[in-house]
Amino acid sequence: MRIAVIGTGLIGGSLGLRLRSSGFAEHVVGCGRTLENLETALARGCIDSFTHDPVSAVDGADLVFLSVPVATMPAIMGLIAGAVGEQTVITDGGSTKQDVWDAARTTLQYPNRFVPGHPIAGTENSGAAAADGDLFVGRRWILTPVEATDADALDRVKTMAEQTGAVVQTLSPGRHDQIFGWVSHLPHLIAFALAAAIGDDPDVDLEFGGGGLNDFLRIAASDPVMWRDIFVANQAVLRTAVDQYASRLNLLMELVNDPEQLEAQLHRIRDSVRAARGSEADDKS
Amino acid sequence: MRIAVIGTGLIGGSLGLRLRSSGFAEHVVGCGRTLENLETALARGCIDSFTHDPVSAVDGADLVFLSVPVATMPAIMGLIAGAVGEQTVITDGGSTKQDVWDAARTTLQYPNRFVPGHPIAGTENSGAAAADGDLFVGRRWILTPVEATDADALDRVKTMAEQTGAVVQTLSPGRHDQIFGWVSHLPHLIAFALAAAIGDDPDVDLEFGGGGLNDFLRIAASDPVMWRDIFVANQAVLRTAVDQYASRLNLLMELVNDPEQLEAQLHRIRDSVRAARGSEADDKS
Repeated sequence: MRIAVIGTGLIGGSLGLRLRSSGFAEHVVGCGRTLENLETALARGCIDSFTHDPVSAVDGADLVFLSVPVATMPAIMGLIAGAVGEQTVITDGGSTKQDVWDAARTTLQYPNRFVPGHPIAGTENSGAAAADGDLFVGRRWILTPVEATDADALDRVKTMAEQTGAVVQTLSPGRHDQIFGWVSHLPHLIAFALAAAIGDDPDVDLEFGGGGLNDFLRIAASDPVMWRDIFVANQAVLRTAVDQYASRLNLLMELVNDPEQLEAQLHRIRDSVRAARGSEADDKS
Repeated sequence: MRIAVIGTGLIGGSLGLRLRSSGFAEHVVGCGRTLENLETALARGCIDSFTHDPVSAVDGADLVFLSVPVATMPAIMGLIAGAVGEQTVITDGGSTKQDVWDAARTTLQYPNRFVPGHPIAGTENSGAAAADGDLFVGRRWILTPVEATDADALDRVKTMAEQTGAVVQTLSPGRHDQIFGWVSHLPHLIAFALAAAIGDDPDVDLEFGGGGLNDFLRIAASDPVMWRDIFVANQAVLRTAVDQYASRLNLLMELVNDPEQLEAQLHRIRDSVRAARGSEADDKS
């Protein structure tokens, strides 16, 4: 199996590392803009060769993995559309799926050979230097095929994802974006906003930040271009989520004047969190 | 040294465990409302004896540690005011300090022997069952003495805190509340609000929650009574912080229509976070 990885960052690099070491890939071609990162990817065993040119990267590839910020997908697809063979299967690792599928549908010559995907394995680190062959082990790998998707294309991508140790799950593109707008994009937006507010207040001394704050700040150090594209692509879901969240925040602040109701709300929230997390924790004080 | 711990939860229980095993305390009396928790504290070695009555708990104590939700402090102080000796030193572990000092100042017979304190060691767990003798090792223990505080009372509390392995730092009560309103109370309020919004939306499937969301949900499972009291006590700082945060959130949502500016903001945020965290991370993709 010859595989082209367009974008050899954390996700693309980790995938190449895993598929080469497992023997699933005979040859992995890396493609990216930064020479230094491609050299790192090569030195670390993520890829067998590299090029800056997507067209030559996909030449003769059985499988193409697109791992670039989602707003860059249409341009990359446009470049490679005429260069991929009829049997080549293309998939991606973008964090939003409706926009990526729309781009594939309108740009690629054989959209039925495109299987939209999203490995849930991002961290705040990026680049091939952070690549890890075990990054996907036990994590979910969401695939969002549509009715027109070729069954054998889906099978090939599913087999590849399972080779990484991930658990494959399928959703529609729209349902994927709805869910991840809430469980990933909203929390990231909140973390960015909190970090911005804290960074702008001269009275705050981050030296005193504890566990809770550090989790937020870690998230707020995520890749700006990747998250710009996600927020833009999934803005409809995100707007609804932000509105509902903001109304909850306002309610809690109002209830500061009504401690009994405030406590009732905090209890209700904790109970729902515990139910969702299946926590066995109990409180006694 | 005879020590009374009023409230033998995670913090009070962990303190008792440490001070008994280090030999700093000859006898630790635990005081609480729940028999089961007091029995757990006794069985785990957090205390030597227990009572439900704060007045008998402080009888003959050299040092009293108040570890109850901050809104309960005035009532407890009122109960023990007439029972503590002139030489007894009192301190506390409350997460807000101006309100606790105001209560001590107006309630205790010898307020100069009261040293307000805040060990930065909370987790989402609570109760003596979660007590850990190493809980304070390497953590900060903030003390907020005022001008009138007796130097030897401050020394005794400082020595006790250092016995736990904590690093003692002093701030004024107001400065403490300003800082922790931002770095602790605001992040907790945000986490509660996010968990509430997610819990109320039937379309969200928490099964898909990843690393970022789990950090929020863990925080939102914190003790409701403790956090009710903190939000109420520090509401002035919190309101300002929430307003500044909400304006940042609104700005980011507006910039979804201006991707270039959005990216610039996210870059600025990440740079400030990295500077604050002293991160060596670099991104290449």
